[in-house]
Amino acid sequence: MSNKANGKSKKHSSPAQPAANPTVTNPFDRRSFMVGAAAGAVTLALPRWMNAGETGFFSGGAPATLDEDLNPIRAEITRRHDETVKRMQTWIRQPSIAAENRGMNEGCELTMQMLREAGFQQVTKVPTAGQPGIFATLDAGAPKTLGLYFMYDVKQVDPSEWSSPPWDASLVDKPGFGKVVVGRGAVNQKGPEATFIAALHAIRGAGRKLPVNFVLVAEGEEEIGSPHFPQVVRRPEVLAALKRTMGIFMPFAAQDPDGQVTAFLGAKGVVELELVSSGEKWGRGPKADIHSSNKARLDSPAWHLVKALNTLVSADGNEPAIAGFADKARPLSAQEKAMIAEAARRFDEKTLMKQMGVAHWVHDVSFQESLELLVSRPTVNIEGLVGGYTGPGGKTILPHRAVAKIDMRLVPDMTAAEALAALKAHLVKNGFGDIEVNMTGGYDPTTTPADAALVRAEHAVYKRAGIDPIVMPRLAGSWPGYVFTGAPLNLPAGHFGLGHGSGAHAPNEYYVIESSNPKVQGIDGSVMSYVEYLYEVARTA
Amino acid sequence: MSNKANGKSKKHSSPAQPAANPTVTNPFDRRSFMVGAAAGAVTLALPRWMNAGETGFFSGGAPATLDEDLNPIRAEITRRHDETVKRMQTWIRQPSIAAENRGMNEGCELTMQMLREAGFQQVTKVPTAGQPGIFATLDAGAPKTLGLYFMYDVKQVDPSEWSSPPWDASLVDKPGFGKVVVGRGAVNQKGPEATFIAALHAIRGAGRKLPVNFVLVAEGEEEIGSPHFPQVVRRPEVLAALKRTMGIFMPFAAQDPDGQVTAFLGAKGVVELELVSSGEKWGRGPKADIHSSNKARLDSPAWHLVKALNTLVSADGNEPAIAGFADKARPLSAQEKAMIAEAARRFDEKTLMKQMGVAHWVHDVSFQESLELLVSRPTVNIEGLVGGYTGPGGKTILPHRAVAKIDMRLVPDMTAAEALAALKAHLVKNGFGDIEVNMTGGYDPTTTPADAALVRAEHAVYKRAGIDPIVMPRLAGSWPGYVFTGAPLNLPAGHFGLGHGSGAHAPNEYYVIESSNPKVQGIDGSVMSYVEYLYEVARTA
Repeated sequence: MSNKANGKSKKHSSPAQPAANPTVTNPFDRRSFMVGAAAGAVTLALPRWMNAGETGFFSGGAPATLDEDLNPIRAEITRRHDETVKRMQTWIRQPSIAAENRGMNEGCELTMQMLREAGFQQVTKVPTAGQPGIFATLDAGAPKTLGLYFMYDVKQVDPSEWSSPPWDASLVDKPGFGKVVVGRGAVNQKGPEATFIAALHAIRGAGRKLPVNFVLVAEGEEEIGSPHFPQVVRRPEVLAALKRTMGIFMPFAAQDPDGQVTAFLGAKGVVELELVSSGEKWGRGPKADIHSSNKARLDSPAWHLVKALNTLVSADGNEPAIAGFADKARPLSAQEKAMIAEAARRFDEKTLMKQMGVAHWVHDVSFQESLELLVSRPTVNIEGLVGGYTGPGGKTILPHRAVAKIDMRLVPDMTAAEALAALKAHLVKNGFGDIEVNMTGGYDPTTTPADAALVRAEHAVYKRAGIDPIVMPRLAGSWPGYVFTGAPLNLPAGHFGLGHGSGAHAPNEYYVIESSNPKVQGIDGSVMSYVEYLYEVARTA
Repeated sequence: MSNKANGKSKKHSSPAQPAANPTVTNPFDRRSFMVGAAAGAVTLALPRWMNAGETGFFSGGAPATLDEDLNPIRAEITRRHDETVKRMQTWIRQPSIAAENRGMNEGCELTMQMLREAGFQQVTKVPTAGQPGIFATLDAGAPKTLGLYFMYDVKQVDPSEWSSPPWDASLVDKPGFGKVVVGRGAVNQKGPEATFIAALHAIRGAGRKLPVNFVLVAEGEEEIGSPHFPQVVRRPEVLAALKRTMGIFMPFAAQDPDGQVTAFLGAKGVVELELVSSGEKWGRGPKADIHSSNKARLDSPAWHLVKALNTLVSADGNEPAIAGFADKARPLSAQEKAMIAEAARRFDEKTLMKQMGVAHWVHDVSFQESLELLVSRPTVNIEGLVGGYTGPGGKTILPHRAVAKIDMRLVPDMTAAEALAALKAHLVKNGFGDIEVNMTGGYDPTTTPADAALVRAEHAVYKRAGIDPIVMPRLAGSWPGYVFTGAPLNLPAGHFGLGHGSGAHAPNEYYVIESSNPKVQGIDGSVMSYVEYLYEVARTA
């Protein structure tokens, strides 16, 4: 069935942005934020795949022959429900936090074990200059091969902020959602990954052959900006294996609380860095904090930083003013503008602004223009300022050091390396060559063509599930997909999956196990969405 | 004896500034920093007042009749040495931290009890909108009355940073210094205050009449900027009592580790404030932290703050650029310039710069010019910057709020109120009227004439002790003396006292009890310096 008309008749809050507080509701930080927030009931009527009495998932248009495969798999998913939940809980209960170098080897080994159990014949730990990656292959004797991207690390936690312990993976009744698993990694990314693995178990358990082969690469440093992931992907044997794939996908709980899905044909790139102004490097001002009365006779590294920052953006703080920074920024095409115009019609601006806690877009532009900016505008953002005394009240010091944490978002055809070089040259040219530029992470932009087989398969599955995805040219967030979409691989890459979760990077991260909302899939429906996706990919030309 | 020639022949590191790290060696934060650092041996030979075999403190020029009073007092000081140390320890062991509202009433009561025991006939707790002050009087039937300023609060501590617990008041052997008491408040300000109180006990214990009457005012909020001290001083009965005094003095351990003293004829004023830029007040940008990709469509309160800060100072960060801010700044007089020239000859620039950890003064000016700037230049300083994510690495947020902690130093005839008003008007005029200006503390500048009786008495005592004080027109730091030196009282005010201590506001704050350096007085010599000061004040015309 198709509910395209109905889908269009209703405004949605935009999944193209996080809700107001990223520490509370933004499900994805550096990679994405496809999960919006509930915007009231919609008229979509998703089939409840796992409900008794359904006539079958593919009743909306799948070839009848497929049902012979899918019906027993559907039964197998139900049979293995507890096993799937248990596997996910086992995974969540093993903390793996790269930022704290905590449980990394254990997390890597556990992931490898799960891949072996799911049928990967070759599973190799790939050493890097940081945490190890994983390279794994599953040859099903199928004509087509699909790439997979996994991460086995999770964000840090402050257990005191959690309503149930972050490593307990407790099953909790969440009003309006149903039964959910609560734990760090629940939605980002162990939940969806465990769900995908369950799909492989279900297909095999039902006595069916996997419709595609797999090449999987995984990393343990996604949450710190994937600094060594290229070292995994660019090994000759990994590159060779990935080159044989149709593209890369990442399992993802793509549904909003209202069931809607927004799909993205790429993502902005990002450079994260610290600008450090210090008396030591500058050769002026103090080398250690000193009494503030000395400002009368000493230069100030903090003022030096402010003066440098001032040169980076326009007077209103909105336009990057770094020479050469955005020279290669590609303007939106007519097709991309049309996508955004359609998205602007379908999203509900008022609800969105309320959720974000904002009253004005920059320059008070229209909603459509705001989405165009979101998708197409390179940015220079201050993530944080820290220098000198930062506690309550004041302290009369002249700080020897001040730091600005900056992120710069990039669009095609900008690159992280060129953006960084432009910033450094700009600082030197403006008399701030002493200010240290410490890049802490970054990705190039990624782009995947709308007509890629992976994308078409994805949309076909959504549509047969009654979801008309809102398609955006590009996610304004970033993920390390550039290692796949850029040279030398130039593969399509994207996210897919039904189901819902939220709270990535925040307390009480959750992932829906049994959904109380008919428009949102629970874990079994989510497993089934991956099964169907694999069959769809196999038959997409 | 006078060692003026010797004193001049030797360069001293400047006590007109704190050493490199105020958290380690700067003894006074907002009030002063009269203690420099060891600059090698000097040829001064201070009399060791308490040594057996001395011919008497006043051998250098005091009238013989005074010895009849002073000799028995000197003996009494020695007899009461343990009592004095014990009183000081009792005081230190009672934490009174206004910033934490900790032990304030207990600290106030203890101080009042000590004043009563020292002979003050009237001791009154003075309620304020904050912590209570103290008003006390001691009528000795003397012709002259001296004002006293006490504080009973101390700075916060982090006990983990201390080598002995900050509330233990342990007696420790400190190499190069002798026996010292270690504890919060040891030098700032309980040690010198307890030493002064011991002088009163010694005079009375020796059966002598106090040479002057006293009017004392004390506060419990000095370390948070004395926000309510005017409420104490400006009560009619307090003003009336203070009007009868010759001026106000504050007991102070004025000696450097090398025994040298720098005297100041006033102090700069200061305004401490926070500039707060927030989406909420601005009405633009987010009201809570939000994913940084939104920078493309949202204004940034952090950039807004940077742009506002940028307007406050010149391009090099050194000259205030706030319209009207320094209009009333009084240039140095010929006499003040001469004092500074003399000080520049006597201080050792090289040692000073090394201690401060600096290689250049602003604009690479000469040492003498640097001292002129220190004394005469109004400043706008960044104490701290804090906004958004301040931890290790980065976090991709667009912060809804950013704060700059600012201090502005003022010279006569500027006032704190006018400086604050100028800043606010400047922000409004430049399009930053939404930025909150939260003043957290401040004092007007203070000036005391060089020929005030208090100053002459102070210098006379120093000189008879073999110390030729380096006189500076003004301290670049600040203290709440303006409530005395300004209208309606217009009294002289200053610090006095021999002895040494350091580490105010820092771990391991100490005060010398028994000095191993013949040029530095231990506690008994320090008590005697107050005794002599009182007699000197009494006989100064």
